[in-house]
Amino acid sequence: MADTSWADSAKSLKGVILDMCGVLYDSGEGGGVPIPGSVEAVKRLKASDLQLRFCTNETQATREKFVAKLQRMGFDISVSEVFSPAPAAVAVLKERGLRPHLLVYDGLVPEFDSVDKTSPNCVVIADAADNFSYQNLNEAFRVLIGLEKPVLFSLGKGRYYKETDGLKLDVGVYMKALEYACDVEAEVIGKPASVFFQSVLNDMGIQPHEALMIGDDLVNDVGGAQHCGMKGVQVRTGKYRPSDERHPTVTADGTVDNLAQAVDMILSQRGH
Amino acid sequence: MADTSWADSAKSLKGVILDMCGVLYDSGEGGGVPIPGSVEAVKRLKASDLQLRFCTNETQATREKFVAKLQRMGFDISVSEVFSPAPAAVAVLKERGLRPHLLVYDGLVPEFDSVDKTSPNCVVIADAADNFSYQNLNEAFRVLIGLEKPVLFSLGKGRYYKETDGLKLDVGVYMKALEYACDVEAEVIGKPASVFFQSVLNDMGIQPHEALMIGDDLVNDVGGAQHCGMKGVQVRTGKYRPSDERHPTVTADGTVDNLAQAVDMILSQRGH
Repeated sequence: MADTSWADSAKSLKGVILDMCGVLYDSGEGGGVPIPGSVEAVKRLKASDLQLRFCTNETQATREKFVAKLQRMGFDISVSEVFSPAPAAVAVLKERGLRPHLLVYDGLVPEFDSVDKTSPNCVVIADAADNFSYQNLNEAFRVLIGLEKPVLFSLGKGRYYKETDGLKLDVGVYMKALEYACDVEAEVIGKPASVFFQSVLNDMGIQPHEALMIGDDLVNDVGGAQHCGMKGVQVRTGKYRPSDERHPTVTADGTVDNLAQAVDMILSQRGH
Repeated sequence: MADTSWADSAKSLKGVILDMCGVLYDSGEGGGVPIPGSVEAVKRLKASDLQLRFCTNETQATREKFVAKLQRMGFDISVSEVFSPAPAAVAVLKERGLRPHLLVYDGLVPEFDSVDKTSPNCVVIADAADNFSYQNLNEAFRVLIGLEKPVLFSLGKGRYYKETDGLKLDVGVYMKALEYACDVEAEVIGKPASVFFQSVLNDMGIQPHEALMIGDDLVNDVGGAQHCGMKGVQVRTGKYRPSDERHPTVTADGTVDNLAQAVDMILSQRGH
């Protein structure tokens, strides 16, 4: 029987933030497939009086292309509702006058079109899958080790994610690799950084205790949101693993089978 | 002016252990090139009354092929004098009944010919350079994450090494990557593990305080040897960087320009 105590507080919610990959859809060949019930669940949330935003560490493509993919899957979603790390990184780079060496998906590079990339004085990594070749990682390493004070940005710090053909290593793994190689600590842009969650709350104009985060990543979605003062619920889809429910440091406010079940519980508490 | 206080104790030495890559030669295309003066320095040590062993984390080829390469460069060296991680790993695997999934240089695989590799219940990684593709690292990850209790062996934990065309990421970087991905701690076989240095001392039949380690890697050669009770001297060749001389946790007993200078100082103290 599901623990439903988290839903008791649904009455006082003003906004919901949804992770995307593993909650809305499973990624994989051809862009991925919607998780059953999730298209309808988003529709129901939008029809409610709750505010809704999407918060992703997705960095495989520009936000525009990414949102278009979700729309083709049937999701009612627009670019302005989606918060992703690359636009946040561009803002940081410009503010600090940094010129990045990029180790990212080819499809993400256009996000950085407006940034000077000559004679790099920092490195930006994001999930890059096959672009994480030995040669490319070594090139990023040489840029960093050649700087007097190496500066490394990591768009997210996930361990792995799930595609239709199995688990795949995520950017956090390569962040740890470069951190060790150069004896530096990366600056994480994206979940679970509080500043990233806070930017979503600011956009909705609500306080942390008025918001609920729903994600499949216990540490980065649930733990990150809780650290920021929100409630965090984990879905048993995507990268969820049973051992998450006995994690030593992060305990979700609730665990549900999927997004559809979470939305059912929230909306029924609110009398919908 | 060089600090020569470490050499004062050279009179009481009974044995010297030399790291190889970065001390004897610089690796790179075509197998690498001897560091000037090192062939002669090995010859002088062999002609002295000191015992001499070589201790390497080299895992690019079998020990036999590796030693043959050094011999072609002009070094007076034999297989029985060389301690490398792969034979030590094979012993551990057999002792514990483990069947490895290997992520290593193609040239190292024959070292594991005598080990059952069907239905793997552990992962062994070593420096693999271009074999550290995203696909191969992901495959090793999937083996580990699929085990009830992931067991990861890393042959060495170096950050990087120097080849004739520049710095290259070493196995330690990928060890950290897999440790983070699977939330495990790797078992390191090779330097700086004390058990590895101790096996070299045992072979010479001497005590730690009677031995001197000479290497280019401050943490793995010098720090590892010191941790084991030996003196450790760093050469300013190979992966040496000036910042090593103000390292926060490891301080070499001495720093010399190269092996030839170290051997000069040792032998002149001993009246040769």
